Amino acid sequence: MQLVLETFVKGILGQQLNFLGRAITLVESTLKEHQQFADQVLEQILPHTGQSIRLGISGPPGVGKSTFIEAFGQLFVEAGNKLAILAIDPSSQRSQGSILGDKTRMEALATHPNVFIRPSPAGTASGGVNHHTRESILLCEAAGYDIIIVETVGVGQSEVVVRQMVDYFLLLAQPGAGDELQGIKRGIMELADGIAITKSDGRLLADARIAQKSLESALHYQIPLHDHWRPEVFCCSALENKGLTDVYQNILNFIEQQKASGELDRYRQTQRKNWWIETLRYGLIERFFQSPYVKKQLAELEQEVIQGNMLPKRVAQQLLKLYFSNEPIGNL
Amino acid sequence: MQLVLETFVKGILGQQLNFLGRAITLVESTLKEHQQFADQVLEQILPHTGQSIRLGISGPPGVGKSTFIEAFGQLFVEAGNKLAILAIDPSSQRSQGSILGDKTRMEALATHPNVFIRPSPAGTASGGVNHHTRESILLCEAAGYDIIIVETVGVGQSEVVVRQMVDYFLLLAQPGAGDELQGIKRGIMELADGIAITKSDGRLLADARIAQKSLESALHYQIPLHDHWRPEVFCCSALENKGLTDVYQNILNFIEQQKASGELDRYRQTQRKNWWIETLRYGLIERFFQSPYVKKQLAELEQEVIQGNMLPKRVAQQLLKLYFSNEPIGNL
Repeated sequence: MQLVLETFVKGILGQQLNFLGRAITLVESTLKEHQQFADQVLEQILPHTGQSIRLGISGPPGVGKSTFIEAFGQLFVEAGNKLAILAIDPSSQRSQGSILGDKTRMEALATHPNVFIRPSPAGTASGGVNHHTRESILLCEAAGYDIIIVETVGVGQSEVVVRQMVDYFLLLAQPGAGDELQGIKRGIMELADGIAITKSDGRLLADARIAQKSLESALHYQIPLHDHWRPEVFCCSALENKGLTDVYQNILNFIEQQKASGELDRYRQTQRKNWWIETLRYGLIERFFQSPYVKKQLAELEQEVIQGNMLPKRVAQQLLKLYFSNEPIGNL
Repeated sequence: MQLVLETFVKGILGQQLNFLGRAITLVESTLKEHQQFADQVLEQILPHTGQSIRLGISGPPGVGKSTFIEAFGQLFVEAGNKLAILAIDPSSQRSQGSILGDKTRMEALATHPNVFIRPSPAGTASGGVNHHTRESILLCEAAGYDIIIVETVGVGQSEVVVRQMVDYFLLLAQPGAGDELQGIKRGIMELADGIAITKSDGRLLADARIAQKSLESALHYQIPLHDHWRPEVFCCSALENKGLTDVYQNILNFIEQQKASGELDRYRQTQRKNWWIETLRYGLIERFFQSPYVKKQLAELEQEVIQGNMLPKRVAQQLLKLYFSNEPIGNL
């Protein structure tokens, strides 16, 4: 396929899956020319983005994420929406197989004409910032998807990344009493707009209720992320199709309320602002550490700091001075 | 007082309070010449630092922090230690009065010859990094203090800052059931190595027990910060002198265990490493935003990002290019 800008843009806006898929591949590519082309595509489609509901869904391994999303996603599709599912794999190469496995496990969704499923290995992330998924969201929106689910395995860092690009963040938890049993990691609960306990059926139902009470009580220690929104805990069963509509309705209520108050707009503006600042910081710091003048002295000076022989401030000053008085100025 | 390096260093190492106090004032000064002098002093005393136990203590307004520290600090003093208390006021000017008030409320400690109490308004922090308190810790250590308590009002950000400079972080909580009653904010509990519930006496004792159970249960959702250390919750009463020795013993156990395993050393090395990287980042970013070329275009381009008219990545690229191809190279 030739890289012709107009063709790509037309293809994406015309909701042609092959162009959407190929554009995401370019966004994820590590080749500079691919990235530059992808940037041009993104700039063209930018006016056609932002209309979707962006959902983050995360849960620990074994929580039954695919089963949940398979059943839960149906609700959106049945309501006439086009649904895109972007799966970030925080462990990149290593478990790429398992995410592709997930795709085949979501059989009904995977074969539905209004559903687009795409794994996105985090391992190829360049520029130190996870642009890919944010940019893939934009591409999916331009291709007419109303609901974008960004799913990730809950391992701590990935949830934070996803939180920064979605409107509503849903945590999946295991039935069970206390401890790490429910699979919710340190500092992650505070990211959630809602929590769904999976497998709330059969002999696990009692455990699910215990988990619900326990998580509700733990939520009391969180200040909600959004004004006027108090996260709730839902017991769900994909098997018995129970509780899923409650979560679905909760999300719709959230979006409606946050849109009405203007908070959704403000929140997305903040996300965009953070995105550019993050990119800027990374650009400045990357260039600094690539400087041969810095490289030559870095290891030695850093060791002096770590061992407590030099003031941390002094080492920073010395390296900054070295950098700014030597670095040849050129184009990026 | 003349700024003679040798005199200052000798004075501090000779445990003369007037030199310690004056050195902290220089560390906190916004005058460049003061800072430069302070840096020289710090470099001289650096080999004489690091031997103290560094304790962070934080609690919400009204938790009875001064009363707690007044009683708790006695335990260290009675054991023959020299105790320094550095109080960070996160709201700077505004409540400086209240922290000075705190000092007079800690009457027994304030008048004890082996105790040094010093308020440190966060408002004067320059360089975007709270160097002052970290540097004041070093100065106190050089002046022979064995125990350094860094106390702060719990308002969210200040606890994170303090956590990064202490060995053991103690959270104070209110007696009471659930919710924000206990005064523990979002994301703060995970910073704690131990939690003390104050006022666990008289008619509040029952509430204290409820808070204890509830916090213990919430701690189950935290992955402890340190290997092999599980934070505990203590019911304390400064009035009845109850539970304070348990906290005291817990801290000594912690230090002993973490020293034996080498974890304390590693943790402090990480703190020093983070300190220099933080200073570096700030230096790079501050210089960027001070560039007249950046300033000229910043507001307009940022608005384009926020409004969603330009790709965040593109704006970062444009401003970086502008910066690096125009910025005159000079000394810092």
